[in-house]
This record gives sequence, structure tokens and C-alpha cells, in this order.
Amino acid sequence: MPNAINTVVTLSGGMDSTVCATLAVREHGAEHVAALHVSYGQRTEAREQRAFQEICDRLGISHRLVVRNQALSQIGGSALTDNSLAVPTAGPDIGSEVPITYVPFRNAHFLSVAVSWAEVLGASQIYIGAVEQDSSGYPDCRPEYYEAFNRLIQAGTKEGTIRIHTPLIALKKVEIIRRGLELGAPFELTWSCYSREDRACGVCESCALRLRAFAATGSTDPIPYQAKPAH
Amino acid sequence: MPNAINTVVTLSGGMDSTVCATLAVREHGAEHVAALHVSYGQRTEAREQRAFQEICDRLGISHRLVVRNQALSQIGGSALTDNSLAVPTAGPDIGSEVPITYVPFRNAHFLSVAVSWAEVLGASQIYIGAVEQDSSGYPDCRPEYYEAFNRLIQAGTKEGTIRIHTPLIALKKVEIIRRGLELGAPFELTWSCYSREDRACGVCESCALRLRAFAATGSTDPIPYQAKPAH
Repeated sequence: MPNAINTVVTLSGGMDSTVCATLAVREHGAEHVAALHVSYGQRTEAREQRAFQEICDRLGISHRLVVRNQALSQIGGSALTDNSLAVPTAGPDIGSEVPITYVPFRNAHFLSVAVSWAEVLGASQIYIGAVEQDSSGYPDCRPEYYEAFNRLIQAGTKEGTIRIHTPLIALKKVEIIRRGLELGAPFELTWSCYSREDRACGVCESCALRLRAFAATGSTDPIPYQAKPAH
Repeated sequence: MPNAINTVVTLSGGMDSTVCATLAVREHGAEHVAALHVSYGQRTEAREQRAFQEICDRLGISHRLVVRNQALSQIGGSALTDNSLAVPTAGPDIGSEVPITYVPFRNAHFLSVAVSWAEVLGASQIYIGAVEQDSSGYPDCRPEYYEAFNRLIQAGTKEGTIRIHTPLIALKKVEIIRRGLELGAPFELTWSCYSREDRACGVCESCALRLRAFAATGSTDPIPYQAKPAH
């Protein structure tokens, strides 16, 4: 099977997952990569789904799956899925504690879909652009979480051989941008903002992390912003 | 908080999960137990959802969550979610290999919802009626799978303190029925059949396991069957 899928990549449409998908395509070839997007009732769902499709088009990934997760918004408990909770603007202490934008156990929902799909496709690996350093302090973005998930796959699938790879986990945001620029990742198609869908707000923690990192690399973030705070 | 939920139980509406939910209610009190049901496009979805509601009514569980998982039927690969694959009738070798009714990595989807919900509710434990022995040979019904899931929760949640309990995992089906009869589990409200929703077929592997076990206890299965094979 020369065109068999060997890699599933989770692609939210944000900066990290886009660099990760670009890397997967460069390493394995677009025809062997399948891309998964999960919408879960987050505020910027439609914009992120558009980013996913445009990024797949650009990278040449034709094997795509868009899944609607209803559970996370039914359960709530996060500013990303619950409109009664406000998305905070970023302070200087990003990452020091678990923020209100944490969606409880979210990545396990995404990875469960990725593993089920990989098992049916016969793919042997899953790429996810999780980042520990410079991230927002989410517990499901740490290396020990992915080690535990790999042990779960070993115990809970037919063959037990699928592996999750987190190629960006130890990188700082600045390094991710540099890596993305080297690889030709389509940053202009990505969406990171937690609260707006027309122009990025520039002040939520996700925009703040992104803008600071672009400023530190000396390159310009190619997406449109509503407001850019001074650095 | 005298009425705080401390336990989430996953309740498919089958025999095992019903005994498990009855046990949770006897141990913790119905007012402290929340019940989760996940529909995933399986053939008998509507019938199982009815069973869930009736069992909750009977057990006095008012805190309920019904979630629709679309991913598993989009992905397919199992006779339970893919109408192009037939549900096999049971042979004598049930459990010797992973059957076509295996839904790839299914329980991780359910448990992810249970953990997210438990985290938001502040519950400290999840009960699931997984059974290793006498079961259908599914890899996600083994003790090592649940040990791995507990390590994943430790690594991937805010507090890391939620624990999954599998009180039935080491029991044989006959013992589960005996335990259920002692506890007063409402077997007459349960649904196990993989293929029919009006009367249980009596010949799929799930019906076969159930009928054999009831026969071995010397008691009568109270649900209606289309056909009962001789034992």
C-alpha cells in the first residue's frame, strides 16, 4: 500500500499544531499523513475550523477528519467553552497556575479520537503539538502526561503499537516560530486567539504568548490583530 | 455541601454497568452519585438510552449526563457502529480473540468524559463496570488498562486525585448476576443485545454471555428474548 496513512496529526489550527503538522508532512509525505480537527464548542470554533481546512489545503493533506465533541461544552467549567466565564487578558504570570481557560481533561478527548482513528487506518503514530515550556500551565501539556498516554495505548488497543509523538514539547515559543519559519509552516493561515474570530484580540493569554514570541524572533506575526500591546 | 456529588458512574444500561451503578448507590447514596451515558451511534442506541433513564429513575439518581459521541461512528471499524459489518452470532470461543464488535479505543472516549465531568463536579471517583473474565476479549477491559488510566489522570488533571474504580473487573458473569441479585439491581430494565431493540436477539455474543450466565445461576433472565438457544 504505497499511499497508506502512517501518521495521524491533531491540528487545531493554532501555531503549535500547524508547525507540528508541517513537520509531519516534511518527515512522512503529505499522502501518508491524516489530519484530525476537533471542534468542542469553544468560542472561536468556526474560525479554527476554517484555519484547519486552509492549512490542510496548503500542506497537501487530503485525508481529514472533523469531529464535533459535544461533551466538553455540556460539561463546561472553562472560559473557552462557557460563555458565562470571561476570557481573561494576559498578565505577566502566564503559566504559573492552571488558568480559567483550562478545559478539564480536554486533550484526552482529542487523543482518544486520534487513537481510534489511527487504529482503524492502521497508522502507527500520532503527532500532537503540545508544548510544556512557555505554555499556559495546562496539566495535559507535560511530557509525563504523554508517557502515561502511550502506556494507556499499549494496554488498551488491539496491537498496542501506536505511539504519540510530541516533537515540540520541549521547545520555547520562540524556537517553535523559528522551526516553523525554517519548515515553511503557513503561519498566515493559523488562528490562536481565544476570544475573537475576525481579527485576533491581541490581549488574551494565547495572543499575548504568540505576539511576545514573534517579537522575540524579530519577525512579524502575519495575522491581523485588533490591538497589539507594546512589548 | 451535604449533597455534593462524590462519585461518577458510567452507565450503558447493560447488566454489568447496572450492577456497578447499584453498588455505587448502595455505597455512597443516590444523592452523591452522578450517572453518565454515552451514545455513540451503536445499533441499539435508543434502547440503551431508555434503559439508562429507567435505571436511574429506579436507583434514585437524579444527576445525569447523556452525551452524544459522533467520532466513533464517523471512524467506524466495528460491527457495533458500522452497518456494513454484520453482528456475528456467538460461537463457543468467545473471548479468545478481539472480535469484530470491538470499538477501537472506545472506553477511553467514555472515561475522558467521565474524568472531565468529575473534575468539574469535584467528584473524587469514577465507577465503571468493566469485566475482564468471561468478557468478550476487548483490550480496554483489563486491569492494566485502568491502572494506566489512573496514572493518566494523575498526570493530566488539575488536582490529579480522581480515581477510577472497577469493582466488577475480576468477577465472572455468574458472580455479577449473584451480586446484582443481592444488591437488588434492576435487571429487568437492562439491555445487552447488540443487534435488536424490541426483544433481545438471544444469539449475539452479548446475549449469549448473558443467557449462559443466568442459566448457570439457576435464575431466569427477566428481559424478553426473540430466540433462546438451548444450553
